[in-house]
Amino acid sequence: MTPQKELVRPVEIIRRRPQYLAKKPPKIETGVLKFIPLGGCGEVTRSMYIYEYGDDIVIIDMGLQFPEEDMPGIDYLIPNIEYLIPKKKNIRGIIITHGHYDHIGAIPHLVEPLGHPPVYTMPLTRGMILKRQEDFKHLGKLSVEVIREDSKLKFGSFEVEFFRVNHNIPDSIGVILKSPAGTIVHTGDWKFDHTPVNEKPIDVERLKGIGDKGVMLLVSDSTGAKDAGRTISESEIQKNLEEIFKNAKGRIICATFSSLLTRIQQLIWLSEKYGRKVLVEGYSMKSNVAVSQELGYLKVKRGTFIGREEFETLPDEQVTIICTGAQGEDHAVMMRIANSEHKFLSLKGSDSVVFSSSVVPGNEASVQRLKDLLYKKAGKIYHSESMDIHASGHAKSEDIKDMIRLIRPRYFIPMHGNYFMLRIHAELAIEAGVKGEHVAIAEDGEIIEMNSNQFRKSKEKAPTSYVMVDGLGVGDIKEVVLRDRQMLSEDGIFVIIAVVDSQSGKIKGSPDIISRGFVYLKESRELLASARHLVKKVTEETTSQMHPINWAFLRDEIREELGKFLFRKTKRRPMVLPVIIEI
Amino acid sequence: MTPQKELVRPVEIIRRRPQYLAKKPPKIETGVLKFIPLGGCGEVTRSMYIYEYGDDIVIIDMGLQFPEEDMPGIDYLIPNIEYLIPKKKNIRGIIITHGHYDHIGAIPHLVEPLGHPPVYTMPLTRGMILKRQEDFKHLGKLSVEVIREDSKLKFGSFEVEFFRVNHNIPDSIGVILKSPAGTIVHTGDWKFDHTPVNEKPIDVERLKGIGDKGVMLLVSDSTGAKDAGRTISESEIQKNLEEIFKNAKGRIICATFSSLLTRIQQLIWLSEKYGRKVLVEGYSMKSNVAVSQELGYLKVKRGTFIGREEFETLPDEQVTIICTGAQGEDHAVMMRIANSEHKFLSLKGSDSVVFSSSVVPGNEASVQRLKDLLYKKAGKIYHSESMDIHASGHAKSEDIKDMIRLIRPRYFIPMHGNYFMLRIHAELAIEAGVKGEHVAIAEDGEIIEMNSNQFRKSKEKAPTSYVMVDGLGVGDIKEVVLRDRQMLSEDGIFVIIAVVDSQSGKIKGSPDIISRGFVYLKESRELLASARHLVKKVTEETTSQMHPINWAFLRDEIREELGKFLFRKTKRRPMVLPVIIEI
Repeated sequence: MTPQKELVRPVEIIRRRPQYLAKKPPKIETGVLKFIPLGGCGEVTRSMYIYEYGDDIVIIDMGLQFPEEDMPGIDYLIPNIEYLIPKKKNIRGIIITHGHYDHIGAIPHLVEPLGHPPVYTMPLTRGMILKRQEDFKHLGKLSVEVIREDSKLKFGSFEVEFFRVNHNIPDSIGVILKSPAGTIVHTGDWKFDHTPVNEKPIDVERLKGIGDKGVMLLVSDSTGAKDAGRTISESEIQKNLEEIFKNAKGRIICATFSSLLTRIQQLIWLSEKYGRKVLVEGYSMKSNVAVSQELGYLKVKRGTFIGREEFETLPDEQVTIICTGAQGEDHAVMMRIANSEHKFLSLKGSDSVVFSSSVVPGNEASVQRLKDLLYKKAGKIYHSESMDIHASGHAKSEDIKDMIRLIRPRYFIPMHGNYFMLRIHAELAIEAGVKGEHVAIAEDGEIIEMNSNQFRKSKEKAPTSYVMVDGLGVGDIKEVVLRDRQMLSEDGIFVIIAVVDSQSGKIKGSPDIISRGFVYLKESRELLASARHLVKKVTEETTSQMHPINWAFLRDEIREELGKFLFRKTKRRPMVLPVIIEI
Repeated sequence: MTPQKELVRPVEIIRRRPQYLAKKPPKIETGVLKFIPLGGCGEVTRSMYIYEYGDDIVIIDMGLQFPEEDMPGIDYLIPNIEYLIPKKKNIRGIIITHGHYDHIGAIPHLVEPLGHPPVYTMPLTRGMILKRQEDFKHLGKLSVEVIREDSKLKFGSFEVEFFRVNHNIPDSIGVILKSPAGTIVHTGDWKFDHTPVNEKPIDVERLKGIGDKGVMLLVSDSTGAKDAGRTISESEIQKNLEEIFKNAKGRIICATFSSLLTRIQQLIWLSEKYGRKVLVEGYSMKSNVAVSQELGYLKVKRGTFIGREEFETLPDEQVTIICTGAQGEDHAVMMRIANSEHKFLSLKGSDSVVFSSSVVPGNEASVQRLKDLLYKKAGKIYHSESMDIHASGHAKSEDIKDMIRLIRPRYFIPMHGNYFMLRIHAELAIEAGVKGEHVAIAEDGEIIEMNSNQFRKSKEKAPTSYVMVDGLGVGDIKEVVLRDRQMLSEDGIFVIIAVVDSQSGKIKGSPDIISRGFVYLKESRELLASARHLVKKVTEETTSQMHPINWAFLRDEIREELGKFLFRKTKRRPMVLPVIIEI
């Protein structure tokens, strides 16, 4: 037992718990800037950050979150916008930092209820937002304004500028907000890559220049704060991937995130260099590739992309397959290939399979299942645990401290992380020179108020209860529905339908039973017969002295007695639902 | 997006796919030894290995497996013993290598149907088996024979000896089986630890001596095969844990596996050295500690262990809490403490929390949730990702090759691993000198036949379909029940009950609806009214020309039309169950 995952980095996280905020700050009198995370401060996803000064509100990002294990059947979660609804006339604009779903995915659901404020973003991000909007035809057209890295906007009392960052999708930006209270730098998702692939390196001089002018608040990405050292460059990844291309004798099958456009570009270039055509498989992968190619963000030679027909005429060593499914998702392309369930692809002993991705926490078991299948059928398996063929899109601790030293903010708030990442990031900020009382951890819904003299957490909070999207329903799934789903999944359901004569109180005929997910019915005849018998008995005993019959009481009696009986016989607790038809 | 888990070890797994077995081996004529894994060859759990020679069968281990994600409600899985049932008179004995649940957990369920063959094991393992048996009072008493490291047994034509190995529970052994076909070495779970804690180091000379006498087959633990290098020693762990004890100012709260007795001993010794009393919390932890202390395997000074009352009188810096819940399990002690749901323990800012354990694949998300809670409330958090405070119980690749070089077997079969681990281990064996055609990967149920001249996979297979334990039911949960549970958990259930007059074909009154896990009922009145209306309409249309009424057809019509309607309105697909009461 006690499977393995062990010593990785010789770094300690033994730091003093910083005293983030002064304990009893005086009331703020003058103009105040408020920072309010509606998502992303408590999770590495569902990003949505609010900056509010007087009557002016700027929103940065509007992302979705995929559901957790205890939310069966839910498609995804979106930020709760109750705080904004009464103030929607104050919203001056929505800025989107980059095209990943955890930053754009809630746009179709939220822009309309917020009164259609203008959305601003870079061209590729715009393309991805509009592409996604096509899946929501009933919601109507969305207009998205294009900005450039050097655009300047005026949102009420906010002046807005941008700066380029590296991530793993082109056109990622950070935002500079100049408010009367002071200047704010909001990084978006970022890393330093001084030798990036298919984009310019982050402009360190520009960052230093921003810092030189004086920054009141830095809000920065915490995803990699827990990791020691620095994120390796995409060109390093490229070099390692090239080794695989040099050595591969048969097909190369690469699974990665469909949103990892930088990686997809690398794989296309390597394929071209080594005489391979590229087949792209997977709906989201195809869709992202189409948008980025159309907008000129993916450089692909004519004839590189092939369809199934050409693919089937080519020798193995002239083909690369780029597909979804690096997380072992059941219906994604890689799993279907591995399971021999794909309509025209199956594995060969000469294949090289490449996982150019990380494992999202929670997916480890399904990735192991996928690996088992691959090791049975494919020739060579490369993954990022054994080789540097994936780099994170996020800065690690040393880079993070450099960013803080470049910007030299008066105040610091970590964003885009689980709580533990936020806390580690807060500690890094103190190491990098920010005063302990000028660092705040704001969890979703908490409001940090500040100006040049004051920095404090408000007593007020924005609502942040989960808003779940399930099919066409947005926010209509309540706790009770989820609890029922979980209960149903544990031990199933047991419905008993009895027709009761309201005169005699006796059951007519034999009660019907519907049981699903509880026991294997074919082998449970005896149990079902006893249950029927029990219901008859309980009904007759309960009603014998009862005129008129109290139907609710009878139902409760049946539920209780039947539940106890079934538990005694099986040690399982199905949901027991008695239905009584009075005639 | 694209959360992180990255470059860990600079090792490639780019090896030729070995040709494990000669392709068309001639039929074996003379006496043959069969190796049959019934569990453990395809997963790092559910260990059960069969050695069969003529009329003699030896079983090694009898473990359970905790369910996978797609098995809602299941308690655990046990090996399928169909292969053994017709041969049960041939079973000469069951040997248990150590006391972990994945090696002992199926004993209560399997010993009886196998006709109570004698069980042999070391004293501590015996204690743990008997302790577990107490939870199965209805199964009666179990007799377990004690062996020592130097015991010699005779099981029919097998002579049996043992050798000591290191793992992370005392009394772990390997098995030597001398059969007329040749000698077999079965390692059990093992690692090399030349400076272990609370046990003797593995006896390398003895292993070499076994090898010198000539070994036909080595069957060895694959858990760590994928990991580069060597497993660090428990004394190294002890040193790092001691640093924590030296520096801690408040309470020390350590979460680990309840079966990690070696680690528990280390924590007790350190507590004694640094003037701390020890509170043990968690049912399985208490139970394991009680058994090992009673049998003398846990050395604890009088007065070290304390109960709640004494605990509450002691200052924080004189207390260590050792508890379960290092995997973020919902109801285990650590999570209850973090959630402030424990009856007398809650976190303080001065606490040091220590995770002396690895994360079992699949538990990463819940461990993150636990960490979030801890980082909010506790002072210092130590975990094995940032510090060497946990060592695996399993050998890594370099140790694994050393074992093969010591034993120098003619044939090699990897066990105790997911398929990908078995394959990597097979490749390591070839690197360590075993011929490619003498290495076989046997998945659960596959039968490898061998003698001094031949080594091949049989066409025959032992049944290995899953046997699930759910409540009192063993093996009674079939695929259909699990499928129903999954379907119920996705979109719930929608039962509609209609009383239909068999003369007129009309519905009497309004149909009843039971809906669970589908929509929030309070906000769905309109949907339910439309569904009732639809059912009336479908019933009347269907029955209007139908004499007599075909009730099955009517039910199917209602199911189909109602299912389509609900999907159109909600894009969800609940399980739709129409119930028709004819009157």
